[in-house]
Amino acid sequence: MSIQQQTWADLEALRRRKPLIHNITNFVVMNGTANVILAAGASPVMAHAAEEVEEMAAVAGAVVLNIGTLWPGLVDACVKAGKRANVCGVPVVFDPVGAGATTLRTEAVKRILGEVRVSILRCNAAEAFAAAGRPAAIRGVDSLADEADLGGAAREIARQLGVTVAITGRTDVITDGTAAWQCRNGHPLLQAVTGTGCAATAMVGCFAAVQPDPVLAAAEALGYYGLCGELAAPGAAGPGSFETALRDRLYSITRQELLAGLRLEPR
Amino acid sequence: MSIQQQTWADLEALRRRKPLIHNITNFVVMNGTANVILAAGASPVMAHAAEEVEEMAAVAGAVVLNIGTLWPGLVDACVKAGKRANVCGVPVVFDPVGAGATTLRTEAVKRILGEVRVSILRCNAAEAFAAAGRPAAIRGVDSLADEADLGGAAREIARQLGVTVAITGRTDVITDGTAAWQCRNGHPLLQAVTGTGCAATAMVGCFAAVQPDPVLAAAEALGYYGLCGELAAPGAAGPGSFETALRDRLYSITRQELLAGLRLEPR
Amino acid sequence: MSIQQQTWADLEALRRRKPLIHNITNFVVMNGTANVILAAGASPVMAHAAEEVEEMAAVAGAVVLNIGTLWPGLVDACVKAGKRANVCGVPVVFDPVGAGATTLRTEAVKRILGEVRVSILRCNAAEAFAAAGRPAAIRGVDSLADEADLGGAAREIARQLGVTVAITGRTDVITDGTAAWQCRNGHPLLQAVTGTGCAATAMVGCFAAVQPDPVLAAAEALGYYGLCGELAAPGAAGPGSFETALRDRLYSITRQELLAGLRLEPR
Repeated sequence: MSIQQQTWADLEALRRRKPLIHNITNFVVMNGTANVILAAGASPVMAHAAEEVEEMAAVAGAVVLNIGTLWPGLVDACVKAGKRANVCGVPVVFDPVGAGATTLRTEAVKRILGEVRVSILRCNAAEAFAAAGRPAAIRGVDSLADEADLGGAAREIARQLGVTVAITGRTDVITDGTAAWQCRNGHPLLQAVTGTGCAATAMVGCFAAVQPDPVLAAAEALGYYGLCGELAAPGAAGPGSFETALRDRLYSITRQELLAGLRLEPR
Repeated sequence: MSIQQQTWADLEALRRRKPLIHNITNFVVMNGTANVILAAGASPVMAHAAEEVEEMAAVAGAVVLNIGTLWPGLVDACVKAGKRANVCGVPVVFDPVGAGATTLRTEAVKRILGEVRVSILRCNAAEAFAAAGRPAAIRGVDSLADEADLGGAAREIARQLGVTVAITGRTDVITDGTAAWQCRNGHPLLQAVTGTGCAATAMVGCFAAVQPDPVLAAAEALGYYGLCGELAAPGAAGPGSFETALRDRLYSITRQELLAGLRLEPR
Repeated sequence: MSIQQQTWADLEALRRRKPLIHNITNFVVMNGTANVILAAGASPVMAHAAEEVEEMAAVAGAVVLNIGTLWPGLVDACVKAGKRANVCGVPVVFDPVGAGATTLRTEAVKRILGEVRVSILRCNAAEAFAAAGRPAAIRGVDSLADEADLGGAAREIARQLGVTVAITGRTDVITDGTAAWQCRNGHPLLQAVTGTGCAATAMVGCFAAVQPDPVLAAAEALGYYGLCGELAAPGAAGPGSFETALRDRLYSITRQELLAGLRLEPR
């Protein structure tokens, strides 16, 4: 079965099983994240109270952690949910939003990665380097995503952290340190909408709930989301109508469109 | 006057008087809730700080409480606002989101129903049973909404809790234990958009601000919201464009469309 | 150079430099605010944790403070971010949402204006009067925006508070106590969408990041935002499609449309 066919099979499984995706995420994207999860076919729940996150995580198909807007208690809630997910065998997907941007964020990322066994880390190159403790000053992060050696760096980070990394950029790189895929789907308008990175992370959570191989789950999710962006763009008059159409396409994409459009390759 | 005519009269009153609808609601739907209240013609205010909820509630046409995303202090804020609303004769509408899903939620619902005189409880069948303390294991909640005896159970719960219950599902049931209506408006795409249940609750708050009979207020609101969903669906390409069109239709529905489309009947 | 030409020049500078706009804002509009900032061409960051707001403010092109949904610690975060911005020469734009509506809000506004050197105060007439400590009972605020003497009152408030005020209403008035502009752009549908006032404030933050004269920055921003509302309205079927189109137009407005449509005049 090709990865394109596997992606369609997993999307169908998602829609059939409708797994609960437990999100502890930021206030900017909560609504949009719940909506893309529904559009993909799964069941979102957004719950971050320390007293209930363990109960939610225990019954989830995947737990998605995102530190986009930090508040006191958020990291505790993430750790609690993550640990319970670990015990229950529920995959944990983590989006270290803004790692490296402030001390608070870098510390939060370090603590979550230290206390929770994260399955998939979904972020951009700058955040991945910060999560791995590599100093930003040296690395010229913004251009790195286009450089030939991102693949090598991604493999090293994956091995160092013991996770699958899914680094998004012009070309996405997904690797657990050994197996590696790249994804060339996506559209520039995704940069003009807030929370598309967080939505991509949520899609990774959806696929992780039905596809046990974290590298495949992340690659399929990023391909699916990026391709829906490509399909949404032609009819859009700007970022507002683009976002609406993207959500429509996540819901309505056909098998034929997916098989023809996914640009996923081994790397 | 038929209930269809009464609904139009109340919608016109809403647009004329523009009552303040004070919402203490969850972070996922705050924006969408404010927008549907504006589209219906009322004035939303979203304020949950313990120090100001009483001042807001006192001048509101209705208070809408929703525990979708719990955080420390939320239940206190709900109780404060609710008690002041009770003193001021302002109707309180309550959405016990996730009652029964976690212990924290079930406790929160119990406390609010214990300390506040709720006028209308808007929820699904599972939440209504949990709010009434009926064990989930026995009842087969998900299918119950389609069963003939939901009407009987709803009446019992209404009497037990001393509220009007508005239970939404394939067919909505609204009853205060004596009078009962059912509503058959709605569209499957409402399930693919997050917060449509919360939006329905907000619509109940709007109608409760102009219609003193809580059973009528809830029935009219659910009919109006569900019908706008039906009117929005034909032009929609998926849940994104559907949600946009739904908001447009809440704003633009005509008297003729409302009178012809409302499927409200005594039960 | 006319103010219309200056607005286009500043919009181009915004898109070229993509300054970071640091927002401490309310939960209702966080997503929408980030999205209009992106549509205008700048880079939004929404961060309100006390431990990181100073780091964010220090590297921002402008700091935007908004107290729409108060929570414990919000005002502290605003003061921290604002003070650091003052030290770093970063302009601070403040939206005193609901000043005068509750005691808590009036106190919050007083404290922020007392401790932070605010560059531009963007609000409606009622909030401006409350911010200046003028009793609401006397002033008939709601109609004042249409009265001839709003200009005079705005000048007094600006001098009293030592800020540029940008008071929006049917006609917007922008003044630092000496120079004054009025703006006649806008559309009634803006009233049917939540957070359009907050979005206007965010636009003022964007222009303040590239235009050093606060009066010009605020006038240009309000003209641009209001004009995009005018351009969005003709194709809209209601507030849902209007909001989508508004975001599209912020992104796609042309030089010709801007020069022809801006109704900014000295007052």
